Amino acid sequence: MAETIFSKIIRGEVPCHKVYEDDLVLAFLDIHPIAPGHTLVIPKEPAATLDALSETSAAALGRVLPKLCRAVQRATGIQAYNVLQNNGSEAHQAVFHVHFHIIPKPNSDQGLGVGWPAAPLAAPDADRWRDAIARALA
Amino acid sequence: MAETIFSKIIRGEVPCHKVYEDDLVLAFLDIHPIAPGHTLVIPKEPAATLDALSETSAAALGRVLPKLCRAVQRATGIQAYNVLQNNGSEAHQAVFHVHFHIIPKPNSDQGLGVGWPAAPLAAPDADRWRDAIARALA
Repeated sequence: MAETIFSKIIRGEVPCHKVYEDDLVLAFLDIHPIAPGHTLVIPKEPAATLDALSETSAAALGRVLPKLCRAVQRATGIQAYNVLQNNGSEAHQAVFHVHFHIIPKPNSDQGLGVGWPAAPLAAPDADRWRDAIARALA
Repeated sequence: MAETIFSKIIRGEVPCHKVYEDDLVLAFLDIHPIAPGHTLVIPKEPAATLDALSETSAAALGRVLPKLCRAVQRATGIQAYNVLQNNGSEAHQAVFHVHFHIIPKPNSDQGLGVGWPAAPLAAPDADRWRDAIARALA
């Protein structure tokens, strides 16, 4: 994948406001936060999108999320939060290195804005997508 | 934590459109999708929010996300997607059992709506939140 600003941060060539690091994962403050304490959690493995990440890095990243979420809650005093991970420019991804956002939600007016155009799942769609996804996994 | 509809789904008392299952994780279609192929990935462990989930379940969940994302991409033919996990009613959580949404993003008008009120991180805030989060982790 292409070099990103996060590759430089991982190599220590660009500074960051680091809050956590282990062999596979790095976490630091987003420098364009949408809420107090907005934190990014990234794998050191270079993968542009989550579908391209190894199981080992994905597991390591998943493993540290609960404790990072607790730390962000404790530091900010804000209990509610969203964890968001975007893939593709259409889906608002701006840096093409996998990153999970931990975004405190102080109240309904601040933090992540969520648009949720839900509709009931029609029976033919349920069969279609269940079968197609299960088949793609097989 | 309180019993939820997902506890009943895990126990098989309520049906779901299942796409994946292992010892620790279950994935099925959201019955109020916001995009075609909208899928939920949940730990079998009962935890209301991600901060309350064990590292073992969180790692197992992280591990399966890449292959589930690839399967949703392949099934829907939609490459872009958002992975979202909400914690607390203020943050749009509706079922109080941890769940990760995999939400295909067909185009800018469909799928997850993202409101992103970003502002540059001021230096005093950077120091404050980095120190507070790192301290909370220690």
